[in-house]
Amino acid sequence: MKIAIVFGGSSYEHEISIVSSIAMKEVLKNELVYLFCDQHRDFYEIPQKIIKSKLFSSGEYTKYDKLFIGKNGFFKKSMLGQKAVEFDVVLNLTHGGDGEDGVLASLFEFFNIPFIGPRVEACSVSSHKFLTKGYAKSVNVKTIDYAFYTKGDTIEVPSFPVIIKPVRLGSSIGVSIVKSLEELEYACDVAFEFDDAIIIEPFISGVKEYNLAGTKINGEFVFSMIEEPQKVEFLDFDKKYLDFARTSGAVEALLSSEIQEKIKESFKKLYNTLFEGSLIRCDFFVVDNEVYINEINSIPGSMANYLFDDFNALLNSLANNLPTKKTIVINYEYVNKIHSCKGK
Amino acid sequence: MKIAIVFGGSSYEHEISIVSSIAMKEVLKNELVYLFCDQHRDFYEIPQKIIKSKLFSSGEYTKYDKLFIGKNGFFKKSMLGQKAVEFDVVLNLTHGGDGEDGVLASLFEFFNIPFIGPRVEACSVSSHKFLTKGYAKSVNVKTIDYAFYTKGDTIEVPSFPVIIKPVRLGSSIGVSIVKSLEELEYACDVAFEFDDAIIIEPFISGVKEYNLAGTKINGEFVFSMIEEPQKVEFLDFDKKYLDFARTSGAVEALLSSEIQEKIKESFKKLYNTLFEGSLIRCDFFVVDNEVYINEINSIPGSMANYLFDDFNALLNSLANNLPTKKTIVINYEYVNKIHSCKGK
Repeated sequence: MKIAIVFGGSSYEHEISIVSSIAMKEVLKNELVYLFCDQHRDFYEIPQKIIKSKLFSSGEYTKYDKLFIGKNGFFKKSMLGQKAVEFDVVLNLTHGGDGEDGVLASLFEFFNIPFIGPRVEACSVSSHKFLTKGYAKSVNVKTIDYAFYTKGDTIEVPSFPVIIKPVRLGSSIGVSIVKSLEELEYACDVAFEFDDAIIIEPFISGVKEYNLAGTKINGEFVFSMIEEPQKVEFLDFDKKYLDFARTSGAVEALLSSEIQEKIKESFKKLYNTLFEGSLIRCDFFVVDNEVYINEINSIPGSMANYLFDDFNALLNSLANNLPTKKTIVINYEYVNKIHSCKGK
Repeated sequence: MKIAIVFGGSSYEHEISIVSSIAMKEVLKNELVYLFCDQHRDFYEIPQKIIKSKLFSSGEYTKYDKLFIGKNGFFKKSMLGQKAVEFDVVLNLTHGGDGEDGVLASLFEFFNIPFIGPRVEACSVSSHKFLTKGYAKSVNVKTIDYAFYTKGDTIEVPSFPVIIKPVRLGSSIGVSIVKSLEELEYACDVAFEFDDAIIIEPFISGVKEYNLAGTKINGEFVFSMIEEPQKVEFLDFDKKYLDFARTSGAVEALLSSEIQEKIKESFKKLYNTLFEGSLIRCDFFVVDNEVYINEINSIPGSMANYLFDDFNALLNSLANNLPTKKTIVINYEYVNKIHSCKGK
């Protein structure tokens, strides 16, 4: 099975998408082709053997074949019209904007391109923190308390410290921990620089965080190990950037079977039917023996490969069991009915 | 301002989209161009002066120029390469799938085409009834109680009558009112024919329903009149079909100013920042003086034109005040940082 990795995008996480995608070379045994979406949303085909991050920062990628997306695939112009790029399935590795917000998922659906990755609704629910909170509540998964504000709202914080997050961005961009009222206005301004809405949560210092990745194949859940990620106060963008290149080194968290079970049950409720077709990583907090969802990463850094025993086999199995959409047949029954009425 | 109406789509509501779009000829004074998305997702340019529903049911539309979507617009092949279809803004009038589920919104965003219509997250929230419920709760708008089921779940209904709805479809497709346990299994099977998840609500016979349409222009809400729609037990597809052709005939509902205010406040909370760029119609129930959201129509039938005094002026004003997205500049700071570290 030949996999086309689609990465880059018009996204604040463009660069980590590059790093994440390059990491796939080490962990997938498939033949790969790299389809780069540059910041202007032009696509280029980059051969697997020459891929390296400098190709993109230097602008050298523009020397390779430019592609356009169309029905059933990606195409390059040729003397005889156009030529399809050969692959069996896309792996959507565009973190953040375009990839995790549903834009590319919609393109793949519209153009009938099979892909591994979250579908459009799953993207909306996981990429927008306010929607994540509402969704989690609907499926009976606990979340940390929060307040939601849009630009111009009066912001009231009853006690500090709090963590302020733009609703839409990932990878800690625009996020601040605020320890006192004096710091609040500036932190909100920073967050509103990136988004029209923010959420404010109590910041729980030293909270235990656990990550679980997984997917559903033929109706059955497949889980990774549960990891307690290495943690500083919170991972800033630089640290997260390096984290996206991970291909090994996870250590299973020491947890009671009760907590492990609670984490897995929460994952199942969140994954539901909405995330079918994707491999996601859920980041949970554990406070007083209760499990809270912090974030749903619908396209986790380097696909959370390092959490699985046999990531290569798993991804191939997922690729072979993607959800399909029913074809809608339009027979113009209603239009014809009206015309036959008019004819009488 | 020249408006391109995009309609049709791979959707159970393909036909009502045609009817809705044709109605625009009567209510918009703009120069229009019709961009039809057929059931195979091929686009065609249909001149305004010849548009009629039979063009589509007969297949005659394929005689007109075939288009493809690309950066900044829609294009037809010409002797000199390609020629852009001229217009200033798209009006997304694709009801149901493709239009209201975020697929076309994503295409317009990706290809940088200005459009009137819900953005991708607004689509997810409004086109998926379970997500609508969770979202409404998050913004403190009441909804009727419900239970959510996916295929294979054991369905338990404590009392009848109930209304069973596939989570994703609009226009009453797959919806049944179930009055007794004997009818339950069949009704669920019907709903699951159309979707992998359903919701079940108590059916409140004779409930008062009120529709309010509106939009936000330059941060200010503009509301339509509130209508009490003509009602049989519930509108089936045939009746709704005719309803989508409406261009006049709304009568303002007689409501206390308290209820009117509650309805408008609920609309504002739901519209929030998420629905910016769109003109939506919210259908509310009023039970014991309390307002409940029933449905958010993110692309209402014939744009709910019949509810506004001057729909033409309003739509043009919205077209001139569409939300814009910030351009993301990628400077490869992180990639370069890594390379400079490696170089040391």
